[in-house]
Amino acid sequence: MASSVITSAAPHKHALIRHPQGRWTVDAVKQISYEVLVRDNLLDPSDSFLADTLRRYVARTGTKTEAETISEAGAGVAGVAGASSDRRLLVVDSTVNKLYGSAIAVYFATHGFETHTLVLDAHEQAKDWESVDAVLAAMDEFGVDRRREPVIAIGGGVLCDIVGFAASIYRRGTPYIRIPTTLVGLVDAGVGVKTGVNHRSGKNRIGTYAQPLLSLLDTRFLATLPERHLSNGLAEILKVALVKSESLFTTLERAGRCGIRDLFDDAFHADMAEYITHESIHLMLEELQPNLWEAVLERCVDYGHTFSPTVEMHSVTELLHGEAVAVDMALTTAISLGRGLMTETEAERVLAAMRGLGLNPWNDALADTDLLVRALEDTVRHRDGQQRLPLTRGIGDHVFVNDVTVEEIVAAVRYLAAHADADAGAATLEAAAA
Amino acid sequence: MASSVITSAAPHKHALIRHPQGRWTVDAVKQISYEVLVRDNLLDPSDSFLADTLRRYVARTGTKTEAETISEAGAGVAGVAGASSDRRLLVVDSTVNKLYGSAIAVYFATHGFETHTLVLDAHEQAKDWESVDAVLAAMDEFGVDRRREPVIAIGGGVLCDIVGFAASIYRRGTPYIRIPTTLVGLVDAGVGVKTGVNHRSGKNRIGTYAQPLLSLLDTRFLATLPERHLSNGLAEILKVALVKSESLFTTLERAGRCGIRDLFDDAFHADMAEYITHESIHLMLEELQPNLWEAVLERCVDYGHTFSPTVEMHSVTELLHGEAVAVDMALTTAISLGRGLMTETEAERVLAAMRGLGLNPWNDALADTDLLVRALEDTVRHRDGQQRLPLTRGIGDHVFVNDVTVEEIVAAVRYLAAHADADAGAATLEAAAA
Repeated sequence: MASSVITSAAPHKHALIRHPQGRWTVDAVKQISYEVLVRDNLLDPSDSFLADTLRRYVARTGTKTEAETISEAGAGVAGVAGASSDRRLLVVDSTVNKLYGSAIAVYFATHGFETHTLVLDAHEQAKDWESVDAVLAAMDEFGVDRRREPVIAIGGGVLCDIVGFAASIYRRGTPYIRIPTTLVGLVDAGVGVKTGVNHRSGKNRIGTYAQPLLSLLDTRFLATLPERHLSNGLAEILKVALVKSESLFTTLERAGRCGIRDLFDDAFHADMAEYITHESIHLMLEELQPNLWEAVLERCVDYGHTFSPTVEMHSVTELLHGEAVAVDMALTTAISLGRGLMTETEAERVLAAMRGLGLNPWNDALADTDLLVRALEDTVRHRDGQQRLPLTRGIGDHVFVNDVTVEEIVAAVRYLAAHADADAGAATLEAAAA
Repeated sequence: MASSVITSAAPHKHALIRHPQGRWTVDAVKQISYEVLVRDNLLDPSDSFLADTLRRYVARTGTKTEAETISEAGAGVAGVAGASSDRRLLVVDSTVNKLYGSAIAVYFATHGFETHTLVLDAHEQAKDWESVDAVLAAMDEFGVDRRREPVIAIGGGVLCDIVGFAASIYRRGTPYIRIPTTLVGLVDAGVGVKTGVNHRSGKNRIGTYAQPLLSLLDTRFLATLPERHLSNGLAEILKVALVKSESLFTTLERAGRCGIRDLFDDAFHADMAEYITHESIHLMLEELQPNLWEAVLERCVDYGHTFSPTVEMHSVTELLHGEAVAVDMALTTAISLGRGLMTETEAERVLAAMRGLGLNPWNDALADTDLLVRALEDTVRHRDGQQRLPLTRGIGDHVFVNDVTVEEIVAAVRYLAAHADADAGAATLEAAAA
């Protein structure tokens, strides 16, 4: 019962045209393909699924088998050929390594892989070129055989973004596989093709579009994830619900009422957890696939990502990515309300759902109007000179607008200060005004 | 009389498929397109061609005009919208800036552009991340409007590779235009889609495949190019002749006999110069277009690039890129001879043609067998575990082999030492043996 969403593709051009007088047009078409696969208990040593999959995903790159390579190489200088096909470089987040390092080592040893592991301290403040460079150095020292030995990233969204970027530029593209271990990794960073790191003052200012061979999503990692990081991931799920699915939103409201700690490690909630993860992954992919390189700049999955990049960089020691996204969503919810795109009841449901998921709609950065205006200006620059701002229309739908004004932003902040987290917000606004 | 080389494209998949039990396949197709255009006297202030083209290549990105943007943005926070469309960031090689800096400034001012120029000391030893970072910083400070303000690279192959890499990762892809000023830039770095810099011990170890919007090729820049750098570019032209075109090779022999200094600044040689540049560009594009992302690893344009990356990095203060390529071609010519793929007469014609173009078939690195073996091993790693070594078959044709042995390499070096540059070569071999 595989369901399929087919996007009609424009006719593609693949030709070299030689015009008179020294002019050529080069048209070429690139096919990309990757898989996203949910599978629990990847690291169970008695289950060969992960090992089999890793070996299969070498074959899938279209390279020949070990035996063929050795026989063809004959007496020549073959270097790394053949014998290396069960070597793998792993890049593992330092926290994940503490919790799962020995399980990872046991699994790969049990299934006959020779691994080298780079442990990386991957968090927002270390999401920079130095971390990319560390991965490049490890790839160089390991002597990664491009195509035959995909690099395996095991960690959260930040780690996946760093490793994906490094792999995508090493020898102009070395395949990699993602095993996200956080909720934001599972439902967001893990499913798309964006890689990158912060650079100078810009969030994800440098990076690439580079699909993994495969994303392997194992929700069992969430059992050890601090609740704050569950909330961090739930922010991205809430985002996709708000712009695309009232049904997912209603489920998130319910999950918030039950308490999110139990959501992913309680058998009673297994169906709810599965619905939430699978549905949010599907809704994300539904938006990403037809627009993988973001040629169309009106992207509803940019919801919550208009003001948040600047807010997050500004409060980098304080806010997780999803927490900054939540603040952005609260602000734009208030803007929608101000425009009559949502009712007051709907806006209050949204803010309440956020709180239920452990997300604070208020952050003091909201009191800094200049910061918000700068954030919007930077987003305008990123979106080719227009705001292209997704706003929720009711719950589960959206519109794009280009004409949000400073006055609207200020009014929305006042609404939030008064309604969202009255005490803290109002106090801050007064302090800022004083 | 536009002639067209159509490559039959495989059917492309563009779909999101949802399989049961949490599995998705994402297939997507990316269309890329760019132009290569030969046009002399780009910087003549009385000719609006360059200015018109730059303005046209904004429209070509599919963005809206200034007027549309302003009217749509209404009273909103528009930031960089509209008024900025005639701003451009130029990245100019320092030598080019000395020679053409004022001509560039006059041209852009005359035609109403507001420019900011980053002058970059772009040579092989500075082909590194620090130079990429300098370009990124300039883009950040300029506040490049992604898509509307393509970055313009004016310089040699190294500069084009650095700027292309920086542009391709800035905001995950910012368009750029190349104006190569050297022969190697015109016929090689300027026509393809490869970007990158050296990293650690690896030549072009990090980079991307990122097409420019446009390459503008003006052979008038060659008038001020030192003869050694003409030879550097002629090495890449000789490469494509050796593997693809006896007719181009014969013309190069003739050019070598006339003396290459006059080739590009003497009206008597205009037809020969035009044939050489246009034909080599066309032959290069003929190989690049169907295999733009190098999915097929047997690439005849890799001829001369098997041993040379390591040799060039090893002798980086001594050899230009084309000079290292020439040494590699001399070595593989001798290997072809040893295999009976070429006659002795043909091999001698090749070595004589090299000398005529100002290229030395011998370099002392050839006496270092370990270096050559290491070079081949690294190439094998880059070519997915096999040598995939293009060897010339006669002149103007090629075969791929996987079984070159150390003994063959040593024998080829001995042939070159004895025949190519007898005195220097033999002396070095004796010194190495002593």
